[in-house]
Amino acid sequence: MRDLAGRLDLCSINTATLGYQAPIRETIDAIARAGFGAIAPWRRELEGEDVAAVARHIRDAGLAVSGYCRSTYIPAANREAFLANIEDNRRAIDQTAALDAAAFVMVVGSIPEGSKDLADARAQLAEGTALMLEHAKSVGARLALEPLHPMYAGDRSCLNTLEQALDLCDALEPASGEAPSLGVAVDLYHVWWDPKLEAQIARVGAQQRIFALHVCDWLVPTRDMLTDRGMMGDGVIDIPRVRAMVEASGYAGAVEVEIFSSFDWWKRPIAETLTVCAERLQSVC
Amino acid sequence: MRDLAGRLDLCSINTATLGYQAPIRETIDAIARAGFGAIAPWRRELEGEDVAAVARHIRDAGLAVSGYCRSTYIPAANREAFLANIEDNRRAIDQTAALDAAAFVMVVGSIPEGSKDLADARAQLAEGTALMLEHAKSVGARLALEPLHPMYAGDRSCLNTLEQALDLCDALEPASGEAPSLGVAVDLYHVWWDPKLEAQIARVGAQQRIFALHVCDWLVPTRDMLTDRGMMGDGVIDIPRVRAMVEASGYAGAVEVEIFSSFDWWKRPIAETLTVCAERLQSVC
Repeated sequence: MRDLAGRLDLCSINTATLGYQAPIRETIDAIARAGFGAIAPWRRELEGEDVAAVARHIRDAGLAVSGYCRSTYIPAANREAFLANIEDNRRAIDQTAALDAAAFVMVVGSIPEGSKDLADARAQLAEGTALMLEHAKSVGARLALEPLHPMYAGDRSCLNTLEQALDLCDALEPASGEAPSLGVAVDLYHVWWDPKLEAQIARVGAQQRIFALHVCDWLVPTRDMLTDRGMMGDGVIDIPRVRAMVEASGYAGAVEVEIFSSFDWWKRPIAETLTVCAERLQSVC
Repeated sequence: MRDLAGRLDLCSINTATLGYQAPIRETIDAIARAGFGAIAPWRRELEGEDVAAVARHIRDAGLAVSGYCRSTYIPAANREAFLANIEDNRRAIDQTAALDAAAFVMVVGSIPEGSKDLADARAQLAEGTALMLEHAKSVGARLALEPLHPMYAGDRSCLNTLEQALDLCDALEPASGEAPSLGVAVDLYHVWWDPKLEAQIARVGAQQRIFALHVCDWLVPTRDMLTDRGMMGDGVIDIPRVRAMVEASGYAGAVEVEIFSSFDWWKRPIAETLTVCAERLQSVC
């Protein structure tokens, strides 16, 4: 496992961690100034911006792009809405390529309002991902399916385990010897509990399907299902154990901090949050 | 699948659903009066009671006991505390036998305070269950391992999927042709999201390892991780689909309602909650 002490260049900040307090250019500069090697911006921050210019700003600041967040939900109540979701994602994949991001991060959505058909949502996910993959390959971008914690199965994601995500990768893009364009984002918050985690991470082995590694912590108690993630070290996840598994599988990308925290970190000044992220990455991750 | 219309005798009320508003004898009588065929009481309701007398009261009311809730958490910070947990569970298993309950329901606990070692908690779970199983067999009781939703992995349960629970059953009590004493409780709230649910339920087949079936619903949004479960029909779970799978596997026990609801049902009079449970069991389950 890589030693992160003195190696913030291996680390990235997902801008959600900073609560979108500043415009994207200020955020880029703050992250670069704090010594990090990469950034993962969100689409909402690029609305109305010239993406090529933002990409240049990021590059000039010396940052790589560890991921671009995130996909429009795929499953829909009817065919027209489903195709509109895919079209929207195609545009975001073009931006992913323009940003030279390591991957487009896919938070996939779940059962549309009024539906209880999880199997149908998963079928739409498979079809939609296939359509997106075709476009991603054509523009040289990669797609990272992010399995979300099962507590989001009712609204945010019908993709809930690493095994399910890797099964989908294998089905849509069978091993061919070439570097895959479809892979996964491993976010410890979503997968830390999984009894099959070690076996599934080991499974990616030669295929190198892990395109992103997100860290934060699981707080006990958790006060809110969406925005009460913890800073690394403040919760119960054995982060080094999981990072060791992921890196042993061959992952050599960034260690990206992604914390949704309406109770705590989003209320602090950006510089303070960045300082604590840097400390914790080097001491408890 | 069994038709529940006019068949409340196939249905059970887990007393947690009623918010422990009344002493156990009143609760028994209310459930019997409402026409249900079974009850699942909690240990807290039997504290200071003569268990044999309560068992008689339940029998005289015409009710079966679909389960007895629940185990003391197993994993502990040291050996002495671990063994004390097992000893406590042995006493509860004796009560399970006295109540002639279908099973002792095991909510197993997770990492002790201060620990991040989920693998160790799972090892303690396996050892503790083996010790409890030996005792259960000696008194003629059955143990039902209840996998809890992964959102409880930090504090309430290191057993988080049906696959994990069935793997543990197979390891501790391999198929022998005899009826098993170790099985699982399938609670839809905890397992409804699982992409492997159908395959795992099918797996129990000839072995008949499902000892309990709990129903409620998953609300969107969920306001509290512990006490915001929904009444059947008010959420997004396709209950008939899962009940059909469970019954196709050979399950012929009670359909038990277990709803933790501090926002809604616990505030209502017991009789009202029982009436709505009866309606929903016969219409949407």
